Amino acid sequence: MDAVTSPAAYSELVQRIQRARTLGSVSDLLGWDEQVNLPPGAAEQRAAQLAVMAEVQHAADSDARIGALLAELEANPAALNGDQAAVVRQARKDYDRATRLPPEFVREKAAQGSRGYHAWARARAADDFASYVPVLEKNLELARREAAYLGRGDAPYDYMLDEHDPGLTAAVVDRLFSELKRDLVPLVREITQSPRAEVARRTAARLTGFPAAGQRDFLREVTERIGFDYQRGRIDVSLHPFCSGSGSDVRMTTRYREDQPLDALFGSIHETGHGLYEQGLPAAHLGTALGIHAGMAMHESQSRLWENQVARSRAFWRCFEPRFRELFPAQTAVVNSDELHLAINAVEPTLIRVEADEVTYNLHIVLRFELEKRLFAGELAVRDLPAAWRTAARELLGLEPANDREGVLQDVHWSGGGFGYFPSYCLGNMIAAQLWARVQVLRPGLEDDFARGDFTWLLGWLREHIHSQGRRYPALELVRRVTGEDLSPRHLVAYLRKRYGGLYLG
Amino acid sequence: MDAVTSPAAYSELVQRIQRARTLGSVSDLLGWDEQVNLPPGAAEQRAAQLAVMAEVQHAADSDARIGALLAELEANPAALNGDQAAVVRQARKDYDRATRLPPEFVREKAAQGSRGYHAWARARAADDFASYVPVLEKNLELARREAAYLGRGDAPYDYMLDEHDPGLTAAVVDRLFSELKRDLVPLVREITQSPRAEVARRTAARLTGFPAAGQRDFLREVTERIGFDYQRGRIDVSLHPFCSGSGSDVRMTTRYREDQPLDALFGSIHETGHGLYEQGLPAAHLGTALGIHAGMAMHESQSRLWENQVARSRAFWRCFEPRFRELFPAQTAVVNSDELHLAINAVEPTLIRVEADEVTYNLHIVLRFELEKRLFAGELAVRDLPAAWRTAARELLGLEPANDREGVLQDVHWSGGGFGYFPSYCLGNMIAAQLWARVQVLRPGLEDDFARGDFTWLLGWLREHIHSQGRRYPALELVRRVTGEDLSPRHLVAYLRKRYGGLYLG
Repeated sequence: MDAVTSPAAYSELVQRIQRARTLGSVSDLLGWDEQVNLPPGAAEQRAAQLAVMAEVQHAADSDARIGALLAELEANPAALNGDQAAVVRQARKDYDRATRLPPEFVREKAAQGSRGYHAWARARAADDFASYVPVLEKNLELARREAAYLGRGDAPYDYMLDEHDPGLTAAVVDRLFSELKRDLVPLVREITQSPRAEVARRTAARLTGFPAAGQRDFLREVTERIGFDYQRGRIDVSLHPFCSGSGSDVRMTTRYREDQPLDALFGSIHETGHGLYEQGLPAAHLGTALGIHAGMAMHESQSRLWENQVARSRAFWRCFEPRFRELFPAQTAVVNSDELHLAINAVEPTLIRVEADEVTYNLHIVLRFELEKRLFAGELAVRDLPAAWRTAARELLGLEPANDREGVLQDVHWSGGGFGYFPSYCLGNMIAAQLWARVQVLRPGLEDDFARGDFTWLLGWLREHIHSQGRRYPALELVRRVTGEDLSPRHLVAYLRKRYGGLYLG
Repeated sequence: MDAVTSPAAYSELVQRIQRARTLGSVSDLLGWDEQVNLPPGAAEQRAAQLAVMAEVQHAADSDARIGALLAELEANPAALNGDQAAVVRQARKDYDRATRLPPEFVREKAAQGSRGYHAWARARAADDFASYVPVLEKNLELARREAAYLGRGDAPYDYMLDEHDPGLTAAVVDRLFSELKRDLVPLVREITQSPRAEVARRTAARLTGFPAAGQRDFLREVTERIGFDYQRGRIDVSLHPFCSGSGSDVRMTTRYREDQPLDALFGSIHETGHGLYEQGLPAAHLGTALGIHAGMAMHESQSRLWENQVARSRAFWRCFEPRFRELFPAQTAVVNSDELHLAINAVEPTLIRVEADEVTYNLHIVLRFELEKRLFAGELAVRDLPAAWRTAARELLGLEPANDREGVLQDVHWSGGGFGYFPSYCLGNMIAAQLWARVQVLRPGLEDDFARGDFTWLLGWLREHIHSQGRRYPALELVRRVTGEDLSPRHLVAYLRKRYGGLYLG
């Protein structure tokens, strides 16, 4: 931090922001508990708790004193050093969001979110997109209004993207995704048409009968070795895996399927990537721009880097394969090391995003981005989404949905107005690959570290260059600072071509 | 509820009280999570969360609008029916407590509570009562000041008792405990001098090697059969067993010791008694006098009734013994049914309250009450506590502590200013015995129900006459209404003489 005296207003601002964030962390815990522990009959009571906490937190976030402090600090920007300016910038953004949305709008959006979820669930079950059309139209209208309240009525989709990834715009994503699409579509075709693809899938299917207790022991050892600090976190079971919390209390979840032992393992390593990021944020600054993550794309880059670049590597399994076989001698006897590696990197094009492998996953995201962009630009009507989806699926994935359940109705995100979120997943993959390329230059023997079970260099590097930076910089600027170049999809394509080309096109 | 129109002020009061209580329930969950789930490194973060929740809850409890509503409702008492009057009475009490204690006093008390705990832990470890004297003196002074702020400076110990059990006074406890002491001291002598006492202890010690998983299955079956609704609650593991939450989310904890299989079982049944009470409170009224328990003594009566009168009975084990033996065939082969029953009802005088059986436990409480009473009356100086404790232990338990760790330093309660809490434990035993006498008159075949594994009549009766009553009446009035007579220790003495006399003096 540069040496500028911290004015009293700045200290008070930080104290108030952190207090509000502490209230937010209580709601986060309620959310975690709801997924992990809540008795079935307590849903209504939990909703009442979350509602009153939302009220209390909104009061803290929109505290007029924060507004006065911001005005005072913004009036004299020269008194702030770079870190402080970043804190004030983020605080202004949060304060505007808390105060500029009219209470009636916030209520309407919350009610619509709940209605939308149920309408989506019904429409999906019945494969009835027509019944879902009014919901999506309403959600689009609300998104536009929200952007307008925040002064972004001219570019509502940019507003949505910026909500998840500060600084991101549709133009940037469009350029990155176009380039990615150009190179990735043919690669996916080559891989999936390779006869080895079917071999990989059949090999993966031979890994069955792994008791949950052994899976739990193994993934605990693996995630701890990678660097997750169980003194400051835990892992539990929930229906949908996630990672919650920050600082000294980071909680991941997983779920065990005896016939898909790689699911819980890679899912947990993915959540560990998120968890390592949260554990690596500077504790003293939690809640301010210096102590929160740099957006969802950067977050996703951390989970994907550990899950894919690291844990699907041959070197990683040089370290862990013996223990895996020791814990599951009979179950692993059906595959040799090469086969295990192939199973870990099985590729199968599917219409369903959440079932996609790391190669094809990106195309699912490109598809959604292109549709969102056209929806917001007014170039595509909601009622025409199913046809547009089918066309895009054929073009990008080479598959055509037999119905809307396999198409436009598969994701929950839009039902609650969650536009602009999908791109983060693919941008995270790009960032991960670009970071991966960078660390291999900096430390050519990195994979030898892994083979020895040593992940300290990589984690230390991420801690220093990513985690400890918080939200000082927009994610794309942070990528540039850390890797020395603008974000580009070429590293992702090169990484995929190298790893999967070697396995499937060799 | 009588037919009086509910004024708007009353509805608003209830809404505000329930909102504050919902915030309180969030803090309760944080407390539960701290004992059950918290990563070791997250203690500081949890303390920060609890502190900000305490602030927020204090703001809700001391909301000036509640004061205005109370004044309005109290100005026209004829407009309120009996239930509403009870709600207003309790709300007034809570509001005064939230508003009449100066913030500096609340801070001082909180700081002293934390200091006191650590001073106690050090003093106990070092058997150094002298170092603890200033803490207790300070705590007594704070208790007196607190009573004075609430207008009870004339009777600070009555104030402390009333905090835990509305309506209770030292004079009432004194009369009840004197009578109990007169009859119980000789009974304890008779039992503990019986040669069967040593047989019972040796028999209990033969029950060893019970794996935790089997204990967990068994106590889950037992507590569910008794009536605990696991759709609205759960049981987990913690260092110290407790029960937390209310309504649709009641959480109990236990702990497993392979060599003391009866500990987790009876501890869980005890917590189940608390849990059944909380699950039986009227959900719509949670947080008001109609939806909160009638005080700690009544709460304890519910836990003790199920733990002792019900679960230590022969009839109860007619139902569960076969399953117990099925789950633990080798471990239970060392005792026949009579021996098992004796082990379940083993009696051993001890200097340590928390290790005491249900017979001698009461005398530990009488001892503490008599000392508290004299401390508050100014008849006993803090520095003279160790000698007074030794004298009382000899008189009541027939044992003399070798040091203060076995005496005055054994309990944590006073270190945090928790005076007036101990009596609830023994009053709970008295109430349980009096309820037990009453239900046996009402349903002479009650124990036949138990032998068939049927607890619905007893639970239904408690639901109707105790749980659904909330805090409408002071606990002692509720006892009178339900049993037709004033609370008296004679039922407890008679119950103990019957059950333990039969086993030890037959």
